Amino acid sequence: MEPTDTQEATFELGIKFGSLYHQFAGTPISPESAPALAAAIESAIENQPHCREVTVEMQRDAIRDAIEPDVGYTEFTGEFAEVEIVVEYDGIEATASMAMDEGYPRMELLEVE
Amino acid sequence: MEPTDTQEATFELGIKFGSLYHQFAGTPISPESAPALAAAIESAIENQPHCREVTVEMQRDAIRDAIEPDVGYTEFTGEFAEVEIVVEYDGIEATASMAMDEGYPRMELLEVE
Amino acid sequence: MEPTDTQEATFELGIKFGSLYHQFAGTPISPESAPALAAAIESAIENQPHCREVTVEMQRDAIRDAIEPDVGYTEFTGEFAEVEIVVEYDGIEATASMAMDEGYPRMELLEVE
Amino acid sequence: MEPTDTQEATFELGIKFGSLYHQFAGTPISPESAPALAAAIESAIENQPHCREVTVEMQRDAIRDAIEPDVGYTEFTGEFAEVEIVVEYDGIEATASMAMDEGYPRMELLEVE
Repeated sequence: MEPTDTQEATFELGIKFGSLYHQFAGTPISPESAPALAAAIESAIENQPHCREVTVEMQRDAIRDAIEPDVGYTEFTGEFAEVEIVVEYDGIEATASMAMDEGYPRMELLEVE
Repeated sequence: MEPTDTQEATFELGIKFGSLYHQFAGTPISPESAPALAAAIESAIENQPHCREVTVEMQRDAIRDAIEPDVGYTEFTGEFAEVEIVVEYDGIEATASMAMDEGYPRMELLEVE
Repeated sequence: MEPTDTQEATFELGIKFGSLYHQFAGTPISPESAPALAAAIESAIENQPHCREVTVEMQRDAIRDAIEPDVGYTEFTGEFAEVEIVVEYDGIEATASMAMDEGYPRMELLEVE
Repeated sequence: MEPTDTQEATFELGIKFGSLYHQFAGTPISPESAPALAAAIESAIENQPHCREVTVEMQRDAIRDAIEPDVGYTEFTGEFAEVEIVVEYDGIEATASMAMDEGYPRMELLEVE
């Protein structure tokens, strides 16, 4: 069957999550550099088509806990951020989030309307 | 509204495309190294949840044309591959492709059933 | 032969350039989002061992020129930034830059002292 | 001071390590897909200037141990590969490796001659 507009909207939303994760995974990060990375991720992904809003909340305590004292930084991965993205496609708004769920950063489709 | 299974399927499919593109964009590539990169991309993305099949066809002529003789390689980007991905989610199969469309690598949702 | 301290310093400096380029190549970018990306790159790479200072100057005119009007953004690559990095290793300071040279983003070792 | 040829060689070698790590960190990986990724990494980085040989040995046991049964894959990072790279610059050969050292993937300059 031909895809519907709501399916197109969630397809676009998925693209944003995959992009965000795999563009920035591996970035050197510390509690001090985390806010600048969050701001850059938000404005970078908001450039993509149909993307209305990206919110990245860095988990600075989790970042701090992951850092070995003699290393001083760690690498950005899904456990260090909570993310919400809103996409608008032909009047349809779709929202999804990424957050830790049993040790795994789960991307979850929340709402389509 | 709660997301439907077909919306979940296309959300998952979008994640795969965003992941593929932003994980591998920037990889040094030549006509000789392109087949190994295609094989690695396919088997890497097929690891992701609900992903049934990934097909990457490198455009070796386009890669060759983009290479400056005194540099000898270029960087992987959307213009150098045609991609098809099939996702299966709760019995629903969704297919999308990426190919060049007026100079831009367009990700297109093809079919949901 | 055993590596010398100045060779160690330039090895460390090279790591920073390769990291910077291949972590962020492919990031969606526009003239508006470029400053946030520059700030994130600087503070991310400065986390790495022996890294004293990273300066990223986005070439906003080049970014603007590369954007198709109906697309609205492009992808970060070497032609859109001039970069200087200073590393300090056991009292030795090494500096290198990346800038466009005949259409190719050249990483150049400038000074070791 | 002007950089010497041996400093240029180790600078180039560092670039290859940083590129390799930050291009491929985050790639979905399983024991089954690891060999294809190793082959792609080797041929991709060997495209870079002055790069003579790249050897990537995936640590399949470490990959297997890191995988949660209900997830089925993990993400490529430094703990899952041992790497050796040889660069040749103006007749000078420089070799370095990456391997785990006290829980941290250490890039180490081995020899310059």
